Amino acid sequence: MPLDRSSSASAILQVICPDRPALVSELSGWVAANGGNIRHADHHTDLGAGLFLSRIEWDLAGFGLPPQAIAPAVTALAERLGGEGQVHFSDTVPRVAIFVSKQDHCLVDLLWRTRAGELPMAVPLVISNHPDLREVAEGFGASFEHVPVNAASKAAAEQAQLQLLADHQIELVVLAKYMQVLSSDFLSHFRGEGMQGHQVINIHHSFLPAFKGAQPYHRAWERGVKLIGATAHYVTEELDGGPIIEQSTVHVSHRDEVDDLIRKGRDCERLALARALRLHLRRQVMVYRGRTAVFD
Amino acid sequence: MPLDRSSSASAILQVICPDRPALVSELSGWVAANGGNIRHADHHTDLGAGLFLSRIEWDLAGFGLPPQAIAPAVTALAERLGGEGQVHFSDTVPRVAIFVSKQDHCLVDLLWRTRAGELPMAVPLVISNHPDLREVAEGFGASFEHVPVNAASKAAAEQAQLQLLADHQIELVVLAKYMQVLSSDFLSHFRGEGMQGHQVINIHHSFLPAFKGAQPYHRAWERGVKLIGATAHYVTEELDGGPIIEQSTVHVSHRDEVDDLIRKGRDCERLALARALRLHLRRQVMVYRGRTAVFD
Amino acid sequence: MPLDRSSSASAILQVICPDRPALVSELSGWVAANGGNIRHADHHTDLGAGLFLSRIEWDLAGFGLPPQAIAPAVTALAERLGGEGQVHFSDTVPRVAIFVSKQDHCLVDLLWRTRAGELPMAVPLVISNHPDLREVAEGFGASFEHVPVNAASKAAAEQAQLQLLADHQIELVVLAKYMQVLSSDFLSHFRGEGMQGHQVINIHHSFLPAFKGAQPYHRAWERGVKLIGATAHYVTEELDGGPIIEQSTVHVSHRDEVDDLIRKGRDCERLALARALRLHLRRQVMVYRGRTAVFD
Amino acid sequence: MPLDRSSSASAILQVICPDRPALVSELSGWVAANGGNIRHADHHTDLGAGLFLSRIEWDLAGFGLPPQAIAPAVTALAERLGGEGQVHFSDTVPRVAIFVSKQDHCLVDLLWRTRAGELPMAVPLVISNHPDLREVAEGFGASFEHVPVNAASKAAAEQAQLQLLADHQIELVVLAKYMQVLSSDFLSHFRGEGMQGHQVINIHHSFLPAFKGAQPYHRAWERGVKLIGATAHYVTEELDGGPIIEQSTVHVSHRDEVDDLIRKGRDCERLALARALRLHLRRQVMVYRGRTAVFD
Repeated sequence: MPLDRSSSASAILQVICPDRPALVSELSGWVAANGGNIRHADHHTDLGAGLFLSRIEWDLAGFGLPPQAIAPAVTALAERLGGEGQVHFSDTVPRVAIFVSKQDHCLVDLLWRTRAGELPMAVPLVISNHPDLREVAEGFGASFEHVPVNAASKAAAEQAQLQLLADHQIELVVLAKYMQVLSSDFLSHFRGEGMQGHQVINIHHSFLPAFKGAQPYHRAWERGVKLIGATAHYVTEELDGGPIIEQSTVHVSHRDEVDDLIRKGRDCERLALARALRLHLRRQVMVYRGRTAVFD
Repeated sequence: MPLDRSSSASAILQVICPDRPALVSELSGWVAANGGNIRHADHHTDLGAGLFLSRIEWDLAGFGLPPQAIAPAVTALAERLGGEGQVHFSDTVPRVAIFVSKQDHCLVDLLWRTRAGELPMAVPLVISNHPDLREVAEGFGASFEHVPVNAASKAAAEQAQLQLLADHQIELVVLAKYMQVLSSDFLSHFRGEGMQGHQVINIHHSFLPAFKGAQPYHRAWERGVKLIGATAHYVTEELDGGPIIEQSTVHVSHRDEVDDLIRKGRDCERLALARALRLHLRRQVMVYRGRTAVFD
Repeated sequence: MPLDRSSSASAILQVICPDRPALVSELSGWVAANGGNIRHADHHTDLGAGLFLSRIEWDLAGFGLPPQAIAPAVTALAERLGGEGQVHFSDTVPRVAIFVSKQDHCLVDLLWRTRAGELPMAVPLVISNHPDLREVAEGFGASFEHVPVNAASKAAAEQAQLQLLADHQIELVVLAKYMQVLSSDFLSHFRGEGMQGHQVINIHHSFLPAFKGAQPYHRAWERGVKLIGATAHYVTEELDGGPIIEQSTVHVSHRDEVDDLIRKGRDCERLALARALRLHLRRQVMVYRGRTAVFD
Repeated sequence: MPLDRSSSASAILQVICPDRPALVSELSGWVAANGGNIRHADHHTDLGAGLFLSRIEWDLAGFGLPPQAIAPAVTALAERLGGEGQVHFSDTVPRVAIFVSKQDHCLVDLLWRTRAGELPMAVPLVISNHPDLREVAEGFGASFEHVPVNAASKAAAEQAQLQLLADHQIELVVLAKYMQVLSSDFLSHFRGEGMQGHQVINIHHSFLPAFKGAQPYHRAWERGVKLIGATAHYVTEELDGGPIIEQSTVHVSHRDEVDDLIRKGRDCERLALARALRLHLRRQVMVYRGRTAVFD
């Protein structure tokens, strides 16, 4: 019977720094020198940018540094390499808020997957600009907050949303078919430091960069495309322009009306968003220069 | 032992007309009244446009009308319905010209598929703005014509191309990675009548409408997409805006450089173009209002 | 603004009979003669078997026969052709029972899709050999019946199940990860007449015919396959041998442990079962000679 | 302008050994200590088997050991870890023989990809039990050897084949739709040492383990499956039972006759075989315990 190491806690190091020889050796040597047993190690060199990215995951059990000493040590290590670093622990479960409007397919899917153990997160808070999905959210044990939004109330609504995020100690927001655009002001206030700058994930119902903006399924139908898709991406100030994490497509035919595209698209959206979120939560995604490296 | 009817010749009727009741009955009744045994029948109603499209294929063996009488009868039938109609015969093999530049992957694939019997066409002519692919074309028995194109010579080059198409009695042009844009003038001269207006098929190396125009793989890499694709479409005066026949995508990752996208894309391009061309040649595609109905 | 005909009720005719000329004309002519406006018509000839299959769907509004007269007329029509026929009405919502064990992913998915309008059915009854999923079932308004099954009690348990199906006037059973094999005796009692013989749909967690029987994911992992899959099929007395409706696969790698296969497989299972069920409920599936024709 | 490091030569180390801490550090440290700049590093731990697998690729330019000293050093390193190791150089192009019968789709595809630079190999030799494909092979510059095989001549034929492989200094055999089973005797004579034991790759026209053996498409049609596939695998003495490298599937419908399955399957076969071969040639595949780890 093999030891199920995967059930024990791990530390996950992410480093990004200028490329030079011996970086893999230096990083893995640091883990080994502290008695860490590496579970996964993956690296990427962006030759054009001259950047080296690394993700190393090791068992916390038996590691020589106490947990509270690891983050400072990582910072020092990264600085020595002239770059940035961060560390996460697999047993620290992030608190996530889900923003929705009226459609419930992504919300139900994410809450179900969380309960099923597929997504290592807690969802204490669901925020919506409509009252419709209260029962779904509360059925899974999340608080539901109805924050109406219109052109006149938007600034105030976003202040209320930010306050709710702070009150619930939220570190990640997932826009699960939230049909409002978050302002630059909102984004500038809800932003992590350094490598953790991106804290909002959105699902857009097209394979970006096609059909940015409103009503992508209607425009896809008009254009007569033979496949439709969905894109999960980090939200930036540029509408539908943030770093892409995951994309998915499905074939359609002339028999599919707009309603069929919407129906088929729901499955694409659910899967792309769930995969992207799982990758993010397991710290398999690194963002740099408007792009992502996904270590899966 | 079943009779292999598929090896015998068939007639393929395409009709497009205003929607009203009893059209399926009327069309299939016409075939039956003339003693035709229907092999395939497929229809589509575009509710928004109020249009009915039908494709009916039946055995020529035993049909009551002589082949030369079928087309006039179809025209009369379609006019009675207030629409348009055309008929093709599966044993009439279209003569197709392939336009290429320097890349040979689509050319080799199409010529190989033609020889293997997958594509019911003859390819007597390959035209290129570069001399590189002569050996490939001639190796499969096609004439190779090198027609250089630059800004100054473009009009004259297109005249020469049109003359070659006429000389070889070409009815369909396939742009198999031909890196030049055909002018409106060319298209206006190489155009069928009525329902057969579209006689040029192109393969574009992106999932349209994303990345229209030049260097889609470079732009896809810049954007950091997680899938790339290819689109086979009829060529119209609007660049990369014609009716789409087939699209295909493949996943890529941060490890893929532009060269990898180009390499992976080649397989997408080959498959999408070959599928689209097979559908066209078997008269499974109908074009209307800038879109296609694909009866597969 | 186009009339949304798709929201009105339709009749769906399915006929299977020996192949001969003029069948399309005869069937569509019968619809037209009764004033029916055909919405979809699709046919298939199995040359080897010498059989003709047809599915025709038309608007009930304006049809010349009253609904109760249609079924007898269809029976007479089919007998005239030496075959079998049946008719369904899109506004008659079938009553479906879902059998489950402990896993809830397919159950939640089906109930959610039913509520969302993707699956035209009612689910008054959920039966399980374990008590775990009562809350899920009841949360969507279904009765939950716990019928424990072991080797000794199996015959009695099946009698209880059959009684529940009768009490709830169930016409279709969906095995949504029900980890018990239904006996031939059960199947012989829960069986429709004629073309409606197949009334039980199962989701098997492999791409059949690979990995029939127990623990397909474990065996797939052992074999080192690079893709796993799911198969939705009608249940017959032959274990995992019934007519296949839908199959789906997903790539896996050496990094995936058995638990990862199970997790990835859940998405395959949910999608394949939901698609198959939608096809069945819209009467797009015809079964003959151990196979299905799927008119999509 | 970034340096195109990918165009320069690299060394690729593969190690398999018992799992224990600090292995990543030890291996990458060895590369760094010799002045190597790591281009890719990937590892895998099989927890059940207690095995650690590693693949490290680094620039040969500037490496401290002369090429001829690397292999002995790697052997010593692997022995120190209680395992096995091997090293390959990207500028050493393997000599590959392709075995075919009458079908040419895989042969043409592999030869075209080799010429296009997608497959880093040389193909000096094509062996067939039929004379049909001489022209194809010779057109791409390969020697074509016709070695007829029947039950009586099989042993002698295999001796002749082995002699041809030796004469042409072949290190890898690809069975590209070679419709004969190689005997255990053949395999025992054409086998590498240690980790290089597997030197024959086959493409089987089904998604194994479904439809092992003869006529998979016919049996797939009989079973009424909704998808077909292809499997590229290393050949072992167990028919269609060797380690799987790559699998691919494509959807089929009731409209597809056996000939359509064969046609659609050809594309699956070509792609799966080409991908598997590219992975093998780039030394991205490691075999252990009847399975493969594919570092892509």
